[in-house]
Amino acid sequence: MQNIFILGTGITKFGELWDVSPKTLARQAFNEALAEANISKNKIEALFVGNMMSGILGGQEHLGAFYADVLGLRVPAFKIEGACASGGLSSHAGINAVLSGMYKTVAVLGIEKMTDHKPEDTASALMGAGSEAERMSGATFPGLYAILAQAHMKKYGTTHAELAGISVKNHFHASLNPNAQFHSKVTVEQVLKSPPVSDPLTLLECSPISDGAAMILITSDRKLTKGNPVKIAASAVATDTLGLPERESLTELAATKVASQKAFKIAGLTPKDVDVAEVHDCFSIAEILALEDVGFFKKGEAAGQIEKLTIGKSGHLVINPSGGLKACGHPVGATGVKQIVEIARQLKGLAGKRQVKNAKIGLTQNVGGSGATAVVHILKK
Amino acid sequence: MQNIFILGTGITKFGELWDVSPKTLARQAFNEALAEANISKNKIEALFVGNMMSGILGGQEHLGAFYADVLGLRVPAFKIEGACASGGLSSHAGINAVLSGMYKTVAVLGIEKMTDHKPEDTASALMGAGSEAERMSGATFPGLYAILAQAHMKKYGTTHAELAGISVKNHFHASLNPNAQFHSKVTVEQVLKSPPVSDPLTLLECSPISDGAAMILITSDRKLTKGNPVKIAASAVATDTLGLPERESLTELAATKVASQKAFKIAGLTPKDVDVAEVHDCFSIAEILALEDVGFFKKGEAAGQIEKLTIGKSGHLVINPSGGLKACGHPVGATGVKQIVEIARQLKGLAGKRQVKNAKIGLTQNVGGSGATAVVHILKK
Repeated sequence: MQNIFILGTGITKFGELWDVSPKTLARQAFNEALAEANISKNKIEALFVGNMMSGILGGQEHLGAFYADVLGLRVPAFKIEGACASGGLSSHAGINAVLSGMYKTVAVLGIEKMTDHKPEDTASALMGAGSEAERMSGATFPGLYAILAQAHMKKYGTTHAELAGISVKNHFHASLNPNAQFHSKVTVEQVLKSPPVSDPLTLLECSPISDGAAMILITSDRKLTKGNPVKIAASAVATDTLGLPERESLTELAATKVASQKAFKIAGLTPKDVDVAEVHDCFSIAEILALEDVGFFKKGEAAGQIEKLTIGKSGHLVINPSGGLKACGHPVGATGVKQIVEIARQLKGLAGKRQVKNAKIGLTQNVGGSGATAVVHILKK
Repeated sequence: MQNIFILGTGITKFGELWDVSPKTLARQAFNEALAEANISKNKIEALFVGNMMSGILGGQEHLGAFYADVLGLRVPAFKIEGACASGGLSSHAGINAVLSGMYKTVAVLGIEKMTDHKPEDTASALMGAGSEAERMSGATFPGLYAILAQAHMKKYGTTHAELAGISVKNHFHASLNPNAQFHSKVTVEQVLKSPPVSDPLTLLECSPISDGAAMILITSDRKLTKGNPVKIAASAVATDTLGLPERESLTELAATKVASQKAFKIAGLTPKDVDVAEVHDCFSIAEILALEDVGFFKKGEAAGQIEKLTIGKSGHLVINPSGGLKACGHPVGATGVKQIVEIARQLKGLAGKRQVKNAKIGLTQNVGGSGATAVVHILKK
């Protein structure tokens, strides 16, 4: 892959931002990214917007032109949607656009405003990510991931306490992240005793409903980058069946495996080379699947290793230093972009109290639906 | 721009297709495109889906993975949305993906199912293409384009009979197109006497609510193309303000001008080189604006020239041989892709009774909203 770079990153606070409009969120992320990149906005040649639910929940579509207008950019603009992988897919599309030679410098905005609506409407809209059969049957995403958890526990003996450890680690990380939705630490006991959502998953194993925006600026223009910029070493996407019933296995997300293998091949790297990763922990079980399917651990072996993936306790690899979807928050269209923001900042040493020491190679894994889409990016210092 | 080609095209009947599901429409367009290309589906490396309203109207999002599943493609898949320009933007994204070197051969599907819902719901969903202020004020797209028509008539003396001539030409073309929604020819008098919608626009000056799908296969792989394939000479996108009140002029669509100038520059061609074009005639006035803003005519001079742009009467240039959005139909996400299908078939001599003689260079112009997005493609034999 030719040399292209993360030129700047921007991110807003994630959380229940009742008093902040989507337009304000977009402007905050954009201004922060421009400041970090130290460029003026007239360098931006195209805009890619990742968002899932603005149409269903708010009736507003045409978000490419909408946010180009909001940000004062008279440039080609695109909305890319792929459920909770909208941010990852937008990043991939932005990277393609730069690699194509059509554009030198582009902005990718991930954004979602989920709390301005009745919770039942938001929950219903989220099912737009799944198959018709799943939607019509009344299935919910906690329910679908609970099925994956049950299958994994049965096949590999994964325990509920091990799953709960994911939330413990990610809440600890979020306590170090000023932009995170939650700053409370939790214990395994608290996770297990929190209200049941869909057996075995409890409330503290489920990512929250969130508002937030994130932005990355991507460039091929070496004149704009300073010093030792973060390089995009790989971007890969894969798909699987939309619904669980058609899957070959319920103990893996095949799309994550395919996208990861492709990404490592493009980058000329292996899972052992990765120092820090942001993976898609929409539910506790999802992080276990990610750790195994990306290739950090063999199948069935991740669950016993979670505590070691914590900042300060890590032998080598740290997972979800931002707090992940669980504790940093999960504004769905923003998540895939926010993961890249976090990894780019870790590689540049800008991660404050949650800085992973000597991080040189980082990875992001973003999932849409119950695994129908997976997007993997690898960044390098 | 490096050499990339239209490898195959597929299109369904456009119209009120009550008894056909979106899945069936997608399969029909895909199978036709594969047959024309004479390749098997395992050559397809990525899928780009243009659609606007599946989420708002049907609750189904994640359409990249959805249609990859429907078409039996386990490949990276993306939904790109930009209102009525969704098809054009998806084509541009597919072209970027091939130019990037990430993918050799990709499929672009434009699809929309608009008739399965209450007409007032569809009309309301369409306003998702406009600005918040326009939506909240109760404006409709016929109303917004009526404002553009009024401004053009006032400034350039364009007459209502001249606007009606657009519908006469496009209905005549559609009468030659077996896939068109309408096969009825109309007269200027009939257009003027049809029910008023928004002054001056009458019912027969407004594009219909339609179902339909279109597909193009794009490749950089010269081994897959036979003989003298259709080349993509340029693809360009531009944006303007989402709402009309912020525009500098109400007698042009600035985004069309910018995208066209960029496309002609990339292709090394001028408007005079174009033999046949599909332009975005969502309302009669929109075709006038397109003809002027693309550069076929000077401002204020297109209206008197419409009849000459008819198949068989053309000195040189034919506009909307398919019947355009007005008479071939306007399934919004499909339109931008269908325009490319039509032009590719014209250049290959596959256009049957509506074949434009000796067509060597063709253009498409696709608009989102009231001109906030414009996408221009130039194809060459």
